[in-house]
Order: sequence, then C-alpha cells, then structure tokens
Amino acid sequence: MDLAMNDQNVARARFSGNTHQPIKRRELIDVAMGKTPAETVIQGGRLVNVATAEIYPADVAIKGGRIAAVGDVAYTKGPNTRTIDATGRFITPGLVEGHLHQYHSYLGVTEFVEALLSHGVTATADAFYGPGIVAGVPAVRFFKEAFERMPMRLIFLVPTLSWLQNRELGLTPTPGVDAEELKEILGWDSCYGLEEPPYLPVVEHFPEFLDLFDETLRQRKVITGHAAGITWQQLQAYAAVGVTTDHESVEANDALAKARAGMTLLMRQGSGCFDVPEVVRTHTEFGIDPRMLAFCADLASPEKLTTEGTIDHAIRVAIAHGVAPVRAIQMATINTAEVFYAQRDFGIVAPGRFADLVLVSNLRDFAIDTVIFGGTEVFKQGKFLIELPKTEYPAFLRGTVKLPHRITADELTFKVDKGRRDIEVRVIGVTEGSLETDERRAHLPTADGTVPADVDRDVLLLAMIDRFGKGTGTGLGFVQGFRLRDGAIASTANAVCENIVIVGTNPTDMAVAANHLASLGGGKVVVRGGKVFASVGLPICGLLAEEPMEDVMAKFSRAFEAIAELGCPLKNPFSQLEFCFACGEIGNIKLSEEGLLLIHPQPHKVDVVVA
Amino acid sequence: MDLAMNDQNVARARFSGNTHQPIKRRELIDVAMGKTPAETVIQGGRLVNVATAEIYPADVAIKGGRIAAVGDVAYTKGPNTRTIDATGRFITPGLVEGHLHQYHSYLGVTEFVEALLSHGVTATADAFYGPGIVAGVPAVRFFKEAFERMPMRLIFLVPTLSWLQNRELGLTPTPGVDAEELKEILGWDSCYGLEEPPYLPVVEHFPEFLDLFDETLRQRKVITGHAAGITWQQLQAYAAVGVTTDHESVEANDALAKARAGMTLLMRQGSGCFDVPEVVRTHTEFGIDPRMLAFCADLASPEKLTTEGTIDHAIRVAIAHGVAPVRAIQMATINTAEVFYAQRDFGIVAPGRFADLVLVSNLRDFAIDTVIFGGTEVFKQGKFLIELPKTEYPAFLRGTVKLPHRITADELTFKVDKGRRDIEVRVIGVTEGSLETDERRAHLPTADGTVPADVDRDVLLLAMIDRFGKGTGTGLGFVQGFRLRDGAIASTANAVCENIVIVGTNPTDMAVAANHLASLGGGKVVVRGGKVFASVGLPICGLLAEEPMEDVMAKFSRAFEAIAELGCPLKNPFSQLEFCFACGEIGNIKLSEEGLLLIHPQPHKVDVVVA
Repeated sequence: MDLAMNDQNVARARFSGNTHQPIKRRELIDVAMGKTPAETVIQGGRLVNVATAEIYPADVAIKGGRIAAVGDVAYTKGPNTRTIDATGRFITPGLVEGHLHQYHSYLGVTEFVEALLSHGVTATADAFYGPGIVAGVPAVRFFKEAFERMPMRLIFLVPTLSWLQNRELGLTPTPGVDAEELKEILGWDSCYGLEEPPYLPVVEHFPEFLDLFDETLRQRKVITGHAAGITWQQLQAYAAVGVTTDHESVEANDALAKARAGMTLLMRQGSGCFDVPEVVRTHTEFGIDPRMLAFCADLASPEKLTTEGTIDHAIRVAIAHGVAPVRAIQMATINTAEVFYAQRDFGIVAPGRFADLVLVSNLRDFAIDTVIFGGTEVFKQGKFLIELPKTEYPAFLRGTVKLPHRITADELTFKVDKGRRDIEVRVIGVTEGSLETDERRAHLPTADGTVPADVDRDVLLLAMIDRFGKGTGTGLGFVQGFRLRDGAIASTANAVCENIVIVGTNPTDMAVAANHLASLGGGKVVVRGGKVFASVGLPICGLLAEEPMEDVMAKFSRAFEAIAELGCPLKNPFSQLEFCFACGEIGNIKLSEEGLLLIHPQPHKVDVVVA
Repeated sequence: MDLAMNDQNVARARFSGNTHQPIKRRELIDVAMGKTPAETVIQGGRLVNVATAEIYPADVAIKGGRIAAVGDVAYTKGPNTRTIDATGRFITPGLVEGHLHQYHSYLGVTEFVEALLSHGVTATADAFYGPGIVAGVPAVRFFKEAFERMPMRLIFLVPTLSWLQNRELGLTPTPGVDAEELKEILGWDSCYGLEEPPYLPVVEHFPEFLDLFDETLRQRKVITGHAAGITWQQLQAYAAVGVTTDHESVEANDALAKARAGMTLLMRQGSGCFDVPEVVRTHTEFGIDPRMLAFCADLASPEKLTTEGTIDHAIRVAIAHGVAPVRAIQMATINTAEVFYAQRDFGIVAPGRFADLVLVSNLRDFAIDTVIFGGTEVFKQGKFLIELPKTEYPAFLRGTVKLPHRITADELTFKVDKGRRDIEVRVIGVTEGSLETDERRAHLPTADGTVPADVDRDVLLLAMIDRFGKGTGTGLGFVQGFRLRDGAIASTANAVCENIVIVGTNPTDMAVAANHLASLGGGKVVVRGGKVFASVGLPICGLLAEEPMEDVMAKFSRAFEAIAELGCPLKNPFSQLEFCFACGEIGNIKLSEEGLLLIHPQPHKVDVVVA
C-alpha cells in the first residue's frame, strides 16, 4: 500500500487513538452552539443513521476528534475549518469488530490495524490471550497500550483463556495470567468485560469463574460467550450465568435458541468460518428482531484481512443473503457497540461520539471509499493518508521458545518393546475444512523397537514439545489427514497452549524443525531432508511477526507452496496444525506434551494415554 | 385492595427485593441442567420474547428469584416445584418505568410500590431528589434502601436536582446534597447513573456538571436527560456532553431530532403529560426504528397510579395509536432496560434475569392479570397475594418545616408607600393544563399602604416562605388564574425548592395556612375564614404521606372539593401551585423567597425584582 507521509495527521491520529482519554466536552458544546468553528466538516453526503434506521442528507461537524453536530451544520464552518467532500456518498459509522484475535493473524499491531482500517473497521474487540499465555499480564498490558496508540478504538477484554489454557484439560499451565490477575485486569478503566470464557469449564469445574462473572456484572461490564456445541440445557445454564453474546452459531435454529435466551449473535465470517448466510436466516426467514444480530471474524489470516476484509465483507454477505442494507450496517455498528455498552462512544454517527466514519458510494457493494478516524481522513481510495505509529516490542516478548536442550531425533521417536512386530495405535483424524478431530485406529509395523510413520497410509508422526521450561516434556502421537510425503511442518503458535507442535514423516526432520523454531524465537517452519525448506519467523511471543505485512504474506505464501510440494493438499495446513492438537474444548482426541488426551464430554473427563 | 396475609411470600418478596444482592448462579445452572428441581414453573402460557420480537409457547423455570430456563422446561419439575398456570395468557417481562418521581405522588414507599406493582411495573427509576433537597444524602440513602426492601427493582439514579435546586436561578440553596456528595452517590454500587441534569444550567453555568458527566461515563453509567424547550443547536450540545435519553418530547419532529442524536425517547404518559400519541408518530409515520422509543410517567398522582396505571396505560395508548403490540411491549421493557444497561437483570424473559413477569389475557387491552416478582405471584386478578413490607420513617425525615417564628398576616402583606393610591405590578399568569407561566400586568388600588388582592379581577396574593431556616425570608407577589373567591391554599411540596408556597385572597388566611403546615410537618392545606378547611399531612420531608393510599386519596379528594368550593376551576390546583412558582427552568416569571424572578433564556439571566 502507498503510504503518504503527513506528520501532522500522524500526530492527530496518535492523539485520538486513546479511546479512554478524557474529552473536552466544552469544546463540543461551543462548536454545536456556533460559538467556535468546527475543525472539520464532512459535507454533501447522505447519513446512514443506525439509531433510527434512516438514510437522509446530513453534514457532520467535528472538533477534537469527536462529533459536535450532525445535520445542517453550515454555521459551524469558520475560515480554518477543513472540509471533507462526501458528495454522492453515504456516511456510515466506522465498523465495529465484535470478536477477533489479532494474534491469530500473526501480524504485529501496526500491520493488523492497517489491515482493519483499510476495510473500514475503526473499533475492534480483543484480549490478547495468546501473548497472555506466553508472557503474562505485562504482555497483555503491552498490547493494550500499543493498540491505544493506534487509530483504532480498542474494546479491551479480559483474556480469560490466558488463565484457562491447559487448566481446562487438567494439564500443567504456563505461568500465564493467574486468577487474581484476571480480576486486576477486569478493573482496568478501559476494560469492557470478559473475552469468551467457554461453557464447559466455567460451569462444570472452576468456581473462580463464577466469582469473576459476579464482579464483571457488578462493574457493569459484559461477559462475551463461546457457546460451541452445547446442548439446549447447557445454553440455558450459560445464559443464566450472565453471558450475553455468542459467536459460535453455525446453524440457524441453534442461533435462534441463543437469541431467544438474550444473547446477541456475533455472526462469524472469518478465515475458516462462514456463518453469516446461515445465521441471518434467523432474521430473514424466522423474522426475529435484527437488533440481536451483529458481526465478527474471530480468526482472520493476513490474506483475508487485506483482500476481502472482515466486517465490510460480512455486510456484503448479509445483504447478498437478503438482509436490508440499513439493517446490515446496524449489525456492523450500533448492534455491536450496544453489546459493549459503547454506543455513547462509537457505533453511531451522533454528537459526542468519536468521529470515526466510513464513506461508501454504494450500500450494496459496500466498497470502502474513505475511512475517517477521530475526524481525520486516514484512508482514501485505496491509499493511506497517514503513517501509522510503528510498534516497538520490548525484550521480554522475545526469546520465548525455551527448550531445555537441543531436541534430538531420538526423543521424537515413538518407541515400543523391541520384541513387538506391530502395534495398534490411536490416530488423530484431520479433515479438510474442519477444526474438529476424530479418533481413528491404525495397525503399524515396528522397526527395531520404534514405530515409524506410514507415509503410504498417511499415518504421520505428531509431537508436542513444552516450550516454556515447565518440565512437562514431549508428547508423541499419530495423525492422519496431512498427507505429507516427506519432511515435517511445525509451529509455535497453537491455541490455546502455544507449545511447539510438529507433524512429520520422520523424527530427524521434526527435530530440525523444533530446533529451528527455537533459533527463530518462534514461528512456522517447513523442513525437508534435514534442511529448512521455508519458514516464517514469529519472534514476538513466538506468535507474531514484526515485519511489514507484505513480507509476512510473502513468507506465508512460500511456506504454503513448500507444504504443498511435500504433498499436503490441505488449504489451511497451519490452521489445522494450530487448532487440531493443542488444548481446548474442540474435538475429543488431542495431543498434549503430557500425552494423548481422550476427552469425554458428558460427563466431562479427560484420560491421558500413550497411544 | 384486599391484602391476603402470607408470611412465607412476604419473606421471599423481601429477600428478592434487593436488585444488587449477589445471586446464586450455581443454583441456576443446576436447575437448567436438570440436576435439581425448579422452585417454580410457569406453564401453559405464550411468551412475548422482547429480545427477538416473537410470541411462542414457552414455560419458565425459576429458582432463587431468577429465571433458570425458558422453553420446554418440564424436566425441571420436581415433587415440590410450585406451578403457576398461564394457560390462555401471554407472559411478558415485568414493565420498566424509565423516569418517575415517587415523591411527586405524595405516597409513601410502600403505598407507591403497591400502586406500581398492581399495574405490572416491577422496575422503576428514581433518584429521590425532593427528599435530597430537604434532608440531604441520608434521606436519599433512606429511600433507596426502603425501595430495596420492596418487591420492586429500583433503577437508582443520582439526584442532580438535589444539588441544582435554587442554584439554577442564582438563589440560596438548601443544604441538600453538595457537589462532592453527588460524586459519592454516583459511586454507590447499585447506582445506574444521573437523573435528568437539565440542559441550560449544565451547559451554560456549572463546570461541576461536566466533571460529573465524565465520571459517570467512566463508571459505565448513564446520563438521563431533560431536554425541554431547547433549540436544535442546544440539542446537539446536549447529546455531545453524553446525554442518551430524554423524556420531554411533546412534538414528533422534535422527538425525531432527539432520536437521530442517539437519545432514547422516554415517551411520557403521566399526570398532565400525554405525549405518547404524538411521539410514537416518529415510528408509526416517520418509520424510525422502534428501539429508540420507551415509556415513562414522570409525574403520577395517586389517582392515576391506582386507576389507569402508568406503563401499562402507555402500552395501551401506543397500541391504540398504531404501534404493534410486540413493539409496544418492547418499549415498556427491553428498550428501557437497555437504556440503563440492565437487560442482564430485567426487561426480558431469559435465563439469569429476575423472574419478574406479567401475565395478560389480551395484548391489546393489556389488562394485568397476574404480576410475578422474583418468582412469586404478588398480585392476581385485582388482589395482592402478599403483604408489602411497611416502611418506618426515621425522625430526621420529620419536622422539616422550620419557620423562624409564627408567621403573621403582616409579613404576608404587600406594602407600598402610604402616599400611593395605586400601583402597577407584575402578575404571574397561570393557565389550565400548563405548567408554564406568563407575565401579566395589573393596576391595583392600595389601601393604607398595602396592596390587597383584587378578587374580582382574579389578582391574588402569592407568597413563598423559606422553610429551611436559611434566613432568606419571604417573597411576595401576585398571581392570576386560580380564581379563589375566598381563603387560601398552600403547600410545602414544590419542585424544586420545596419551600412553602401560598396563594390566597387575604394575608390572614395565608398566615393560618403557613402555620398549619408547620404544625403538620408539611403537606397541603386549604384555609377559609381563618380556619383550616381541608388538609393533607405530608409529614415525611414535608413531601410524603405515611398513611394508607386510600386515606391519602380521600384527603386529597376532600382538599380538591374544598378548593373548588373556594371558586378555583383548575383541575390540578396543587400541581400548578407546585410547579408554577418554585424554582426551575420552566417559565420566565417565578416567585422565590428572595423576590419575583424574571428569567431571560437567551442569554440566560435572572433579575430579582419586587413586583
């Protein structure tokens, strides 16, 4: 993207970037009353008023980054008032992202914000749970403050998963964030509530969570939910504990039950999740009040972020599936803001709110023409008009891949009694397009007391290595679905344990992969013939790149090509590496560094087995 | 009303009455999951789901005063589960009152709650600003705690008018509540925000208010508005300072401008205010999203409270004026709850919320069949099934009418130089059906250095006496519109100064009225021929009765008859006595204890004159 330097604008964007900075309401009064001129007036456009669901001509007067008046505001123009011409365009609020993890994009803060902004998103919810798992409260605070320097409203949430992580399955956690620290973070002024404490552990296991819920509600903050695969009774229980959103609906009847239970449906349209067409049926077919519908991406790859976008894309998808444009824009703005009790600050175009706006020529295409943040045009017709602040990462976020010693092929070798000729093992089954796993079985021949991969039958080796010096060691298992013919692939960014996960055809290449990741400080690697074939360095917490977006995307492209060359047909091999084996409540067979996990949902129970 | 004694129910209603008591979420989980039975199940009804705007058959399982599950909840029934039969009826959330002053009803806490409950209102917003003016923070705290013992959710707000009171017009305030105390009250856990800081003083005069606004928003609380008679530019400024509701719209275009500025319209249908038919036109004719509309009564006499009701009546009026029943019920429940960020606790029928419900047989009539509070039937087919807790008032709320000495006729006599034969005076004009006043003039003959009332031309004497020992004395003036032929009427409950106000035909009867009010500890009095002709004792703060509702209403009836006998044709003479002369921003000519006030709105300026 073309970056036009403009120091004055940069300074203004940085200043307005802090959502929680006290505002000068007296200045807004004076502009509204015609006593002092507006800094900026946006004129000639048609306003999409998402409060009233109307569209009508209206101009917008701005002062100090906030809106002073909306309507016929010619009287607010002085000799130094800048004007932004919106003739022929619609003015909508900046789009609001209800649930998206920056760290799952691998992009640094600046690069991530740049991608969102260029698609009209000016507010985003995040808790930085990955960095929290790796480096605790200081990491969470660092990312929060880094976002607050950006032209982006951060809807900061408590990273409950930074505490839950391995605890959910009874495994040894990283130091991460402890339960007392969750309460401390909740009390931060600019915290809006809790990020997705999942149903099962909350309700079945951890009384700490119910205390945290009470405190959250006492502070008038919100409990966002994660109601994947729960029964109707569990849904009632989940609503009863105070959860008022969910982003996991994939089927309209299931979504309807959640909306009826008072949960706003954050319809997911992200990388690997395409729920909008189905979930909008609750409105377009079942006729429910659209106030209960909003959007999120949850997960978004750099490619998705920069090409089709996130919330703007969700608007287009919703309209294509029968939602009226004004309703779709409400779902992308006020409905999300109201979930977080933030309508006073953003999500509508009205006096007192941040001057975060989007101009589009056509509501159905919803192609972003101009993005205005805090009253400043930051992006226009494909180009940035400001330079975003660079993000400097501190030392404590680096060097987080801590191996006790150089990993050897021997320790990644699956061993059996030398006398055995074969063995039946459990195999974790991976399927294209799904983050679920299924339990399969395979008879494998042994070789001198070891069990090699069976490349022809696609039974590959799988390893998870503790990278936090916890002393929990390395777990080994077998996997089917990657279809590598050669080499190994590995990653340090794996929800929600963030250990090293490796899939390979042989222990030697797998050991090379592990040691290379340690030398990078984390990332993704593809190894072939004992050599690094492609890699993406993610040196920040072992989760995030600090290179420009284009470079990160180029390295990912190269890695995907390399994986394909090794024979793997999966479209998102790294996503499946990240979500299929690490801990969490998706699937019933998992690999941990402590062994293979067999997860029984009802009643919830986890067995740790060798194979 | 018939009060059926039932100690067990009384105890339960008292327990559940505290909105902010920690709830036992674990118990709700266990009921939702079928592990323990529900306490109560409401079965056979059709649910009005105000979140989704749907109506469908659903049962409701209740435990510990909250809802555990909604839908097919047969599995939650155990041998000891009570059932409430809702066959043939609709289940709606308990109605939510968005803005209503208990003290303007003159009723004690118990009697007021009884009246609201019998009409389906289970949550009400109040700040107790009148008691706050008279007796400060301890009074506000007393009323808050008294409500919290009742089967009523209190949406407690900061009584900004307890501070503003006489300050608004530059007069000597009562001790009331000081600015620091407003902040202290705001910080109370169960406080939802600020009650109606009016536009002009906030924006033009008092920087204290902007600080309070910032702190309110920081605490994620709400600033409710009072945007009477303001210009479009003032409206922009008012929204810009963070105000998100208004209850003062009387005209549809004016209301539209407020909704467009992000303010929820609390449409008023109270005693003397009948705004719903006009303001719903924003939805029924202009087509705005009904999410911006809700209801309130603001002021309600005992008669209105007990006969036509408040929010239930507003629903009926809205439906009669073209609003779909489900939308009208949303306006009476979820829309109001969302204003206060309280949807997690009330305003919808969903798990986790208080089991505050209304059963009605017909949505158009919306005649209340049964009222359920905290899972207990409290009112059914015209009868209370519980006895409400009595309210015991402490000594510091009594004896608040503090006169420096016995008032004499001489000091209520308007005097001029003995040599003058006549005088031109300003006369405050009062008009039937309006709380506004207009400035008139009259030439009056003098008599031995005094100016008597001119009963034939309806120019009567008017006095306001400091009753707080402030030393501000007594103001005298003239009034037209009451048409008393004889005697005097007087009151100690007068928004927003709460002084003694007297209208009379002669100083002798007026002095009798003042002294009788002091002996009562406050109230309303009608005097004729030097004797008390009728009176209503309001011994609590000089504002509230402590007698049963029927007795209060009987005394008011008698007083109204007495006033009519004196020749006054006004329908609500006490309302006009209360609102036409005391301080506040309504009208441009007022009487204060410091003299006659001439109020210039633009720029805002107050002159104090003799006559």
